[in-house]
Amino acid sequence: MIELDFSKYGGLIPAIAQDFRTGEVLMLANINPESWQETLATGRAVYYSRSRKRLWRKGEESGNVQLIREILVDCDGDSVIFKVEQIGGAACHTGHRSCFYRKVDGGTLVETGETVFDPKKVYNKQ
Amino acid sequence: MIELDFSKYGGLIPAIAQDFRTGEVLMLANINPESWQETLATGRAVYYSRSRKRLWRKGEESGNVQLIREILVDCDGDSVIFKVEQIGGAACHTGHRSCFYRKVDGGTLVETGETVFDPKKVYNKQ
Repeated sequence: MIELDFSKYGGLIPAIAQDFRTGEVLMLANINPESWQETLATGRAVYYSRSRKRLWRKGEESGNVQLIREILVDCDGDSVIFKVEQIGGAACHTGHRSCFYRKVDGGTLVETGETVFDPKKVYNKQ
Repeated sequence: MIELDFSKYGGLIPAIAQDFRTGEVLMLANINPESWQETLATGRAVYYSRSRKRLWRKGEESGNVQLIREILVDCDGDSVIFKVEQIGGAACHTGHRSCFYRKVDGGTLVETGETVFDPKKVYNKQ
């Protein structure tokens, strides 16, 4: 088992999800020891949701799971990169490929990222 | 002024530094409102060091500053990407280009990243 340093942020460390092909950063979330173990064991990205206070198996609702292709650990052992194959092509709940779909342009934010799906059709399906 | 949501992590939000040419993730650090403003104003990456409890002007000691080429903001406004030109070629205090120079291989971590400089020659110069 690879030990990470979960001591600094109340038991959580940040995990960057990056497209394993293009290098695009898709999202940033947190993991706790349990989600770290489950990610290693299953080969799918599992985060910890601070708002829901539980494990967040990415794609559990939308089907857009993240298959782990490589994991990198930083020099301090307190942050990681998940290089993933993003099923469905989009990581963001807004339907954008990346959560980082806005860029600073002068004094404002402008949309720059591509929309892959319509969130209304993916979530809250009856 | 672009407002970010600094409310979730005790006044800090994570900032991913990414090589603007290759997309390689170089490091992950935190910013506070003051470092955010100074980054926007100066065009150089300014973080907040939790251990030193002060602004951390990246490269202030090593000279390896990060010139901002683009800034992306995520869907929730609580994390950012600095796309940077890394002066000196290395972001990590260990001399590696990226702080994420170790990868998970089986049950262990193996070094994978390139070393760009010898930290003994860059820091603690008399």
